[in-house]
Amino acid sequence: MTTLGIVKRNITRADPAAVEKLGRFGVATLHEAMGRLGLMKPIIRPVYRGARLCGTAVTVLLQPGDNWMMHVAAEQIQPGDVVVAACTTDNEDGFFGDLLATSFQARGARGLVIDGGVRDVDELERMGFPVFSKAIHAKGTIKATLGSVNVTVVCAGAIVHPGDVVVADVDGVVVVPAAQAQTVADAAEKRESFEGEKRAKLASGVLGLDMYKMREPLAAAGLKYID
Amino acid sequence: MTTLGIVKRNITRADPAAVEKLGRFGVATLHEAMGRLGLMKPIIRPVYRGARLCGTAVTVLLQPGDNWMMHVAAEQIQPGDVVVAACTTDNEDGFFGDLLATSFQARGARGLVIDGGVRDVDELERMGFPVFSKAIHAKGTIKATLGSVNVTVVCAGAIVHPGDVVVADVDGVVVVPAAQAQTVADAAEKRESFEGEKRAKLASGVLGLDMYKMREPLAAAGLKYID
Amino acid sequence: MTTLGIVKRNITRADPAAVEKLGRFGVATLHEAMGRLGLMKPIIRPVYRGARLCGTAVTVLLQPGDNWMMHVAAEQIQPGDVVVAACTTDNEDGFFGDLLATSFQARGARGLVIDGGVRDVDELERMGFPVFSKAIHAKGTIKATLGSVNVTVVCAGAIVHPGDVVVADVDGVVVVPAAQAQTVADAAEKRESFEGEKRAKLASGVLGLDMYKMREPLAAAGLKYID
Amino acid sequence: MTTLGIVKRNITRADPAAVEKLGRFGVATLHEAMGRLGLMKPIIRPVYRGARLCGTAVTVLLQPGDNWMMHVAAEQIQPGDVVVAACTTDNEDGFFGDLLATSFQARGARGLVIDGGVRDVDELERMGFPVFSKAIHAKGTIKATLGSVNVTVVCAGAIVHPGDVVVADVDGVVVVPAAQAQTVADAAEKRESFEGEKRAKLASGVLGLDMYKMREPLAAAGLKYID
Amino acid sequence: MTTLGIVKRNITRADPAAVEKLGRFGVATLHEAMGRLGLMKPIIRPVYRGARLCGTAVTVLLQPGDNWMMHVAAEQIQPGDVVVAACTTDNEDGFFGDLLATSFQARGARGLVIDGGVRDVDELERMGFPVFSKAIHAKGTIKATLGSVNVTVVCAGAIVHPGDVVVADVDGVVVVPAAQAQTVADAAEKRESFEGEKRAKLASGVLGLDMYKMREPLAAAGLKYID
Amino acid sequence: MTTLGIVKRNITRADPAAVEKLGRFGVATLHEAMGRLGLMKPIIRPVYRGARLCGTAVTVLLQPGDNWMMHVAAEQIQPGDVVVAACTTDNEDGFFGDLLATSFQARGARGLVIDGGVRDVDELERMGFPVFSKAIHAKGTIKATLGSVNVTVVCAGAIVHPGDVVVADVDGVVVVPAAQAQTVADAAEKRESFEGEKRAKLASGVLGLDMYKMREPLAAAGLKYID
Repeated sequence: MTTLGIVKRNITRADPAAVEKLGRFGVATLHEAMGRLGLMKPIIRPVYRGARLCGTAVTVLLQPGDNWMMHVAAEQIQPGDVVVAACTTDNEDGFFGDLLATSFQARGARGLVIDGGVRDVDELERMGFPVFSKAIHAKGTIKATLGSVNVTVVCAGAIVHPGDVVVADVDGVVVVPAAQAQTVADAAEKRESFEGEKRAKLASGVLGLDMYKMREPLAAAGLKYID
Repeated sequence: MTTLGIVKRNITRADPAAVEKLGRFGVATLHEAMGRLGLMKPIIRPVYRGARLCGTAVTVLLQPGDNWMMHVAAEQIQPGDVVVAACTTDNEDGFFGDLLATSFQARGARGLVIDGGVRDVDELERMGFPVFSKAIHAKGTIKATLGSVNVTVVCAGAIVHPGDVVVADVDGVVVVPAAQAQTVADAAEKRESFEGEKRAKLASGVLGLDMYKMREPLAAAGLKYID
Repeated sequence: MTTLGIVKRNITRADPAAVEKLGRFGVATLHEAMGRLGLMKPIIRPVYRGARLCGTAVTVLLQPGDNWMMHVAAEQIQPGDVVVAACTTDNEDGFFGDLLATSFQARGARGLVIDGGVRDVDELERMGFPVFSKAIHAKGTIKATLGSVNVTVVCAGAIVHPGDVVVADVDGVVVVPAAQAQTVADAAEKRESFEGEKRAKLASGVLGLDMYKMREPLAAAGLKYID
Repeated sequence: MTTLGIVKRNITRADPAAVEKLGRFGVATLHEAMGRLGLMKPIIRPVYRGARLCGTAVTVLLQPGDNWMMHVAAEQIQPGDVVVAACTTDNEDGFFGDLLATSFQARGARGLVIDGGVRDVDELERMGFPVFSKAIHAKGTIKATLGSVNVTVVCAGAIVHPGDVVVADVDGVVVVPAAQAQTVADAAEKRESFEGEKRAKLASGVLGLDMYKMREPLAAAGLKYID
Repeated sequence: MTTLGIVKRNITRADPAAVEKLGRFGVATLHEAMGRLGLMKPIIRPVYRGARLCGTAVTVLLQPGDNWMMHVAAEQIQPGDVVVAACTTDNEDGFFGDLLATSFQARGARGLVIDGGVRDVDELERMGFPVFSKAIHAKGTIKATLGSVNVTVVCAGAIVHPGDVVVADVDGVVVVPAAQAQTVADAAEKRESFEGEKRAKLASGVLGLDMYKMREPLAAAGLKYID
Repeated sequence: MTTLGIVKRNITRADPAAVEKLGRFGVATLHEAMGRLGLMKPIIRPVYRGARLCGTAVTVLLQPGDNWMMHVAAEQIQPGDVVVAACTTDNEDGFFGDLLATSFQARGARGLVIDGGVRDVDELERMGFPVFSKAIHAKGTIKATLGSVNVTVVCAGAIVHPGDVVVADVDGVVVVPAAQAQTVADAAEKRESFEGEKRAKLASGVLGLDMYKMREPLAAAGLKYID
């Protein structure tokens, strides 16, 4: 069970080579390679145009209006990590801004995914620190109540274990369990190798109806053409 | 009555010259020229900055989590068409991505308006294929259940008949019935011809209160100035 | 009590020097300098990238689907003002477009904050007239019912008195009471002077845990580190 | 095309006998009998417990914050009608209360479905006048702008033609096109006649897996049982 | 300006006789008597059927996830008061339950209006302690950060000064400024005296079109009857 | 990792005695006894007044618009179970109605918690089959795509493992991990034993300020009383 007031120091991060490979693919492709699972809800959006990240999760469980645990999390960051912040309740306060981003970046973090709000968005863009959040909100937070770091969290509807791989781009955020990083990366690679050929055919005017042999199943399902 | 499992092949598209003329005006102007009707709800937004489209509607009625009918629709597209996709229930899955866009573009489509989600947004922008949607979501869809193509649909609160003209820009999406395309285009032109003069007056510091002769009706309505 | 059908002509605007000074700071900093109060809800967003404004409030209370009072407000604008528009009920119609913007700009307005919708967004950007709104919607409005101008309003959850200073940027919108403009500007300046040093320390790898001396209170609160 | 400022006096109402028969079935059953179409969005809810209605639609297109057309509609009501009110934009004002309900009831109306707000809910319940709405809101409305009566409207996502049959209960609101009233009523009756037998089997412990012969298709789809 | 960390002990409550008189009218009537102002947003709903309250406001400004100030407010309650709780940010945590209700009731409070969540709803109903809230949520809160008591707050979009009269029923929540209590009560009484006659006329079949003499203005506005 | 197309037959259910004991407490009390974790989001509401349930979770992962897995789940139900249904994406279709309820009840199920919609609500109440859902919607679903049964799911923001205890009442839904059922039940009992005494004190007029000894910490935090 998730408990409040816990920081787990030793977590098993996904294999770095697999993480790098996962970073080559888009979120839509990875979600397909996962068997259509692992996505966060689409309320999580990049806070600036072109933001994109891939890394291993250091998880944070926040309390509403309180970002104390963000500072605790900073110490647990290793180069290549992404911080994934959930909250014990729905809250859009600005839990994160340029000072924390400076600290996270100094520790080697590759970005932040947060089921909450952030601020100092212009500065985040200037720093090149990618953030994906539910809201942009100048509202400040306090430092009074314990949450946890590196426990399993639910962030925007997705389960995230510390050490899992998190990839985010304009299409959304996907979570790849650490133990499956290599398998999913390979599946994504395979999937993508087929896409070029398909794209060329479709570009030449071939219909998906024919390329995917859909005409027969459509007719079997009862589709009727009328004039 | 709308029925599931139907593809109408022969639809009456709005007059091409009228469509081209409609394409010269902004959505706000066209909505006014329509007598303040025909707009979709503002939840439909361009998926990339600068997206804009104008064309004749090929309509699709989708099932939740299922984009089978998109492939059926592709075959019905003629150059100059815009695909307008509604769904039998609220759903934000990613019904559409770069492969379908490639196919639609190859058929001559000018873009997509969808009361649902799309993905591969960066690629859509690179392709120059304008899309207006309710959500951006990497979530994939299946191909299992029949909807319909070229039936009357309700898309984001607006009725769309196949062949109607659909115009979309940063201000929203407007639907012009095929039979009224020319009338509305002419009304928009007339309306716009008045705007330059108004703009010049207002820019010179003339107040709308005077230009539109509002002082008397405001006083009649009881407006009181106090110090 | 707020009353409908009133226009207050003489309002006490915040001191111009204080307004200029407030304009040098970001919304997040000002909100902190205010003691963490004064923010609008984060549903209010800039309608184009890079929009930013600072000025004294001319307030408008609109009726749903009716922008008559916008024209009445135009006459009350003095150079350096920002129009702040609230509505008697939730409504996302397009109360404001390029013609009103031309008029407001001619009067010296520095922008608009509106708990409602606006249109002609591309033109607003070309004009360099910053607007922060709840929605972008081409839907036109009528001119039939009285609201008020320069009464106290609630805009997106914040109380705004005419003459208050309103500052808006990508992080949100903050309202500084006129009488506090100088105090808040000074507090913001002081606050910002500390930030550079903090940023440098964090960038060098010092942890917030140490810089803010959080380790002891965290332990006192019961935080446990496990392996 | 829908136009503002129109009242259609002669509309073709669905056959009374078919309407009465439709009234015997629940909304879920009728939606199934329609081929899974015709439902409004689930944001429309009964304003009091036990509300239920069935009748022929007199449609109203309202303007935001304005219920003038409700009074125009009253005159078009015939015994057995249900008023269906849409709005040109999203608005939750209280368009309807006990006085209008008294008038509608005196004309023989069987209830109201409105994509907006209503008030005087306790009194509506005491009168036994069933109302289904998007909101309960004391906010009053004005009488200033024309909408239309007995034009085709989109109400909560469903197309409603004047004369169509509207049935509403705790499960939602369904619209049956006038020309299909008898067919749908018959299909609903047939559908319901099968339900008793199914219910008895399921109550005795027979599984849907067996009753609907799902085991084979599930295995074919790849379902795996593990221990 | 509102400040955090303040408790105002001496507030000017509306005249008790006027409060009692206001309590005789429904919220819709009072809102009309106020000139169509003073309503909270319709997201605030009674937590049990039949809840209704009228009293003078003791205001509370809460922090998200923190109900410390509720205990501070309890001491300021006098018989006949209603507690009105706002929050510095949107939050639906369960700030209030049966223990606080017991304390408030012991102090003579007539109920609670809260722009947040509450819990122990069954017990609140058994106690006959009326509560109007934005959410029902079992989520507990902490006691760590100062808000304020008896400062001016914005609750669900309405300005509430301590001592104002708050009336809530199934139609919503209205705030009557203390200084206007008697005037509004008298206006409501007058308004209601006209309603009986109108209701009788409408019940007899007279149309609002005739009773309110709308036919001429409708024709002037351009309304067209077609067959 | 969660996988689609899996049914786990042998799950470890929480100890029956602990489940029964948990059933004696309200959701708010259990959530506190859990250390303020384990709650679903407050969007999940009882579909009829007075609904309440407690049992061990059989979990279902549904696809949007598809309730095939509900039938698969029925076979896995044992007396005392509660079905907990999540979906791979946000969807409010009516996945569940009286026929499935009949089947579930025949298998000994104590109710349903679903992050989706249900229908036949009047019949569910007549059957005494408690359901907690995100929506009531007559919209029917298909049986075409595999989800899973008895895998770990996220339902309305809470992680649910098969065999966990789920308790739901008017205040919300709480999930107690199977291994902690007895501990949490004991903690809830202890917590409740203190409540009677507290309630009596508060009812007698003792203030929480004094009972919880808050005056000193409030003063230390800087609370100021003014007149």
